[in-house]
Amino acid sequence: MERRVPTKEEVLAYLTEDRNWGRWGDDDQIGAVNMLTPEKRVAAAQLVKSGLAVSLSRVFPKLPAPNNPTPAQHFMRRNAREPGGGSAVDYYGISYHGQATTHLDALCHVWDENGMWNGRKAEDMITFDGAQWGSVEHWKEGIITRGVLLDVPKFRGEPFVTLDKPIHGWELEDVAKSQGITLEPGDAICVYSGRDKWNEVNPTWGGDPAGRAGLHASCLKFLRESDCCLLVWDMMDFMPNGYDLPWSVHAAIFAFGIGLLDNALLQPLSEACAEAGRYEFMLTVNPLRVVGGTGSPVNPIALL
Amino acid sequence: MERRVPTKEEVLAYLTEDRNWGRWGDDDQIGAVNMLTPEKRVAAAQLVKSGLAVSLSRVFPKLPAPNNPTPAQHFMRRNAREPGGGSAVDYYGISYHGQATTHLDALCHVWDENGMWNGRKAEDMITFDGAQWGSVEHWKEGIITRGVLLDVPKFRGEPFVTLDKPIHGWELEDVAKSQGITLEPGDAICVYSGRDKWNEVNPTWGGDPAGRAGLHASCLKFLRESDCCLLVWDMMDFMPNGYDLPWSVHAAIFAFGIGLLDNALLQPLSEACAEAGRYEFMLTVNPLRVVGGTGSPVNPIALL
Amino acid sequence: MERRVPTKEEVLAYLTEDRNWGRWGDDDQIGAVNMLTPEKRVAAAQLVKSGLAVSLSRVFPKLPAPNNPTPAQHFMRRNAREPGGGSAVDYYGISYHGQATTHLDALCHVWDENGMWNGRKAEDMITFDGAQWGSVEHWKEGIITRGVLLDVPKFRGEPFVTLDKPIHGWELEDVAKSQGITLEPGDAICVYSGRDKWNEVNPTWGGDPAGRAGLHASCLKFLRESDCCLLVWDMMDFMPNGYDLPWSVHAAIFAFGIGLLDNALLQPLSEACAEAGRYEFMLTVNPLRVVGGTGSPVNPIALL
Amino acid sequence: MERRVPTKEEVLAYLTEDRNWGRWGDDDQIGAVNMLTPEKRVAAAQLVKSGLAVSLSRVFPKLPAPNNPTPAQHFMRRNAREPGGGSAVDYYGISYHGQATTHLDALCHVWDENGMWNGRKAEDMITFDGAQWGSVEHWKEGIITRGVLLDVPKFRGEPFVTLDKPIHGWELEDVAKSQGITLEPGDAICVYSGRDKWNEVNPTWGGDPAGRAGLHASCLKFLRESDCCLLVWDMMDFMPNGYDLPWSVHAAIFAFGIGLLDNALLQPLSEACAEAGRYEFMLTVNPLRVVGGTGSPVNPIALL
Repeated sequence: MERRVPTKEEVLAYLTEDRNWGRWGDDDQIGAVNMLTPEKRVAAAQLVKSGLAVSLSRVFPKLPAPNNPTPAQHFMRRNAREPGGGSAVDYYGISYHGQATTHLDALCHVWDENGMWNGRKAEDMITFDGAQWGSVEHWKEGIITRGVLLDVPKFRGEPFVTLDKPIHGWELEDVAKSQGITLEPGDAICVYSGRDKWNEVNPTWGGDPAGRAGLHASCLKFLRESDCCLLVWDMMDFMPNGYDLPWSVHAAIFAFGIGLLDNALLQPLSEACAEAGRYEFMLTVNPLRVVGGTGSPVNPIALL
Repeated sequence: MERRVPTKEEVLAYLTEDRNWGRWGDDDQIGAVNMLTPEKRVAAAQLVKSGLAVSLSRVFPKLPAPNNPTPAQHFMRRNAREPGGGSAVDYYGISYHGQATTHLDALCHVWDENGMWNGRKAEDMITFDGAQWGSVEHWKEGIITRGVLLDVPKFRGEPFVTLDKPIHGWELEDVAKSQGITLEPGDAICVYSGRDKWNEVNPTWGGDPAGRAGLHASCLKFLRESDCCLLVWDMMDFMPNGYDLPWSVHAAIFAFGIGLLDNALLQPLSEACAEAGRYEFMLTVNPLRVVGGTGSPVNPIALL
Repeated sequence: MERRVPTKEEVLAYLTEDRNWGRWGDDDQIGAVNMLTPEKRVAAAQLVKSGLAVSLSRVFPKLPAPNNPTPAQHFMRRNAREPGGGSAVDYYGISYHGQATTHLDALCHVWDENGMWNGRKAEDMITFDGAQWGSVEHWKEGIITRGVLLDVPKFRGEPFVTLDKPIHGWELEDVAKSQGITLEPGDAICVYSGRDKWNEVNPTWGGDPAGRAGLHASCLKFLRESDCCLLVWDMMDFMPNGYDLPWSVHAAIFAFGIGLLDNALLQPLSEACAEAGRYEFMLTVNPLRVVGGTGSPVNPIALL
Repeated sequence: MERRVPTKEEVLAYLTEDRNWGRWGDDDQIGAVNMLTPEKRVAAAQLVKSGLAVSLSRVFPKLPAPNNPTPAQHFMRRNAREPGGGSAVDYYGISYHGQATTHLDALCHVWDENGMWNGRKAEDMITFDGAQWGSVEHWKEGIITRGVLLDVPKFRGEPFVTLDKPIHGWELEDVAKSQGITLEPGDAICVYSGRDKWNEVNPTWGGDPAGRAGLHASCLKFLRESDCCLLVWDMMDFMPNGYDLPWSVHAAIFAFGIGLLDNALLQPLSEACAEAGRYEFMLTVNPLRVVGGTGSPVNPIALL
């Protein structure tokens, strides 16, 4: 792909001319996850070589923070049970979208003026009863596929991505190449940007609505060309996106039918991949089966 | 194992003489999941033959029902996002223990007069801040292992397990044998009892606190001898347990360090296994990473 | 008023010809509570003779029941506070509409095909952000007024209202007369139907969606003619209403601008009034100040 | 009272020698609210002169803020109801203690090393099921009494209380005197400190855990001597309290059995009193009837 920042017209063209609407039928609610054929899963399982398991989930975010304005709830109960025993039970409550929780975005999560995935209108489909289109239960068999890690800090030789240097689509191509990775249709692409290293020397990532280091809208072209089914990332869309678009990289959801797995914890995976000298693995993402849900908190687990 | 109903003394002996306390150290909070070595995971991955994925999760239970007295909460919001776009977000709230939600029980979930897993005392460990012992985040790498299905209705030639004929430990041995299954340490044992078929002709399973068809306390011996790390089941402990024990099969949690995955949806797996003529598979259970949590709602996915 | 069951046309006429739309201006969101002038409050305060206070609130309904399918949540925390002290805090969560919680309905709560209070359209006004019309904060100064109790069981010489004998508007006139009560504009009318006595010998009131003893649609005329600002009741609309209307007595909200205070506890007030030989008192209803809220759980207190 | 800052020993003496334990019996859970006799309520009602009603409640705090780290929840639903009608319902969820919500503290809310109200031990009484001692339902008849406003900014000729000049007990005596107020047993004392004026030129009051302008521990003596039943305030305990005590003015709860009504909105009342030239009124505080609750969000309403 061309190594220059696209114009707004070009970005809009990614989102309209290159979109996947109709590719799996006009009534399809599964999107790029359709590429997860049985064969793709078999191939993913064959990537399990050492058996090392790495969680890509941050801890369930119960503490208020600049990037966590409505913290998750965790309430406990200890019950007696005769004779002489007992149980501990708890309640979890969470508004998982945002910058704190590791979660999956379903195809209904975002839209622009052209509509939701496959052209549906949000006014009709997003109801008080839940999403009637593109909700997360359409992925009830999970997103279990080949995962690849693109380690941007390692490529750059810097600890984390900075505000003045957003990640561009062609850089992701370069990263993949430098790691010897060939992308395949239906892959889950994990883009590590160094969020936890960022947090060590900056205000909490995601806490400042005015600006955010991350992936530039030019990555949309990369995502589309990669034909991936899922983007797993720790630092998300570069903001402000510079195009006065409601969504930049997040637009991959409604335009391409790609799932996004936001706020992943990727540093441990980065270390594990570096140690193994291998950047592909089996990835298991098992969303809760919420009818009408717009996504799910998840604990994605990579098996190397 | 002997083919007779054990005495109370014998059951108590399973729970004390045969227990796994100290087996992985006195300070261990992982229990039988310790058996999930990298090698075990590699072997599990090699069981993926056809690539068929089957969800073992019931839907997130938002509707009140006799077995769901405090339904899960799902609240929606549709937000505008300038220019011309928008997003749908939602809140999930759930008290997942009980008879409705597919969920994993952590090692802290239950105890008897002898204490919690590895002998800790619930009064000390179950606090308003969460469980300080045996909580679910100790399984953050998930429970990804070989799964085997024991199909009791198929073995019995009946659609579901009935109240007058609880499942005994020796019957599970027979089922495994009839299916040609050899159990191995660290397996996840899935016991299908026909819950959904039960529901077709009976009041909702789990809704009557007076009685429940399911697994008899004699299964404890079977579980211990199998050396499994997880029991996945749809109809749970036979109740009343007949021994005036606070917990019967659930006691496997604190005595053996075995995880329980309650209210699984096993009929689709039963059908898939029957069609494939194969009762072993790779099982992926990815609990939310809740520090201090007593378990997690999950969407377990089997890969055949 | 005429002592016969009205036709559907007559009921619809109450709701259209007799409605209060525009009475306090086309943009009014306060409705009949506008009648609570300073003078009305002074007069109410002068009704406090003995100083006896009676709560009209049931307990916060935490337990599941046939009439409480989504129980209120109450979660506790005990915190240490150095040196040597501590605090207890808790979380309350409640969907207060329905048949279990003592609560106030705001003017936005219900509508029929003609619209909400003062003719607004629910599609425009009821948003994910809250009600934009007739929400409860418009009553932030509370509903503090003269209350009168109409004791139907006492009038009938029966412990509670039965399914076969709904309360009609003309009967409420008779009850008021028999008690020597003259209704005045801006009063809060409390209609006691004997709910707790009902519960002693029947399935829980409100738990059966098929039918409910209570007030017949003919009470609409009585309410309108009384020119009250609030109806406080324990057994609510008689159901099915017999007219294929979405709302019968509840229609007083959108047609007349009258507040409804559902699921009140009226037996203690009935006893206190009987003992005092007096059926008027000062009533204090202090709703939470929720911007966009459709009502509020309340603890109404009568001062005799 | 003496016009000097008390020593720690003197403060501790207020809390032990002067405490009200046993005054209304050793098993009393009502505390100073016992002083709300019928006669006291009648006298309060007679204070309603103009009939003006003033809400002392801030809005239900749904927005995250430095003093609101766990915002209240408000979730909406719009339901259709055949034929042609509908309803709007909502869910309220709130952890009301803290610096954002106008709420009442029950007698169980705080304690020091000597125990809770009337000497009970928190370890025994604060359980996962709720508070077993001094919970809010013991005030189910509300706190309806004579209210008096002490307007500190007016007395000082300054818009709000500042960090360098906490309010002392003797100053409250002076304020009362300057306003011509004689305090009587069972009164509700409202201390206005100018919180909303503070917020106009300072960071949000309550948002900085390091320091807070407000009432000094010396006010404890004033509260005890006033023999009030309730303290209503907008800026609460001056912090740090300077004595290394877990609680300073909040100790009035467990030592004296006085209720606290935190985060009241007092500026409108201050204006109304100034205009009326009168600083006494009828106050109505109607807490939700939550069995085991540690307090309640409330909308206190003053009637002048």
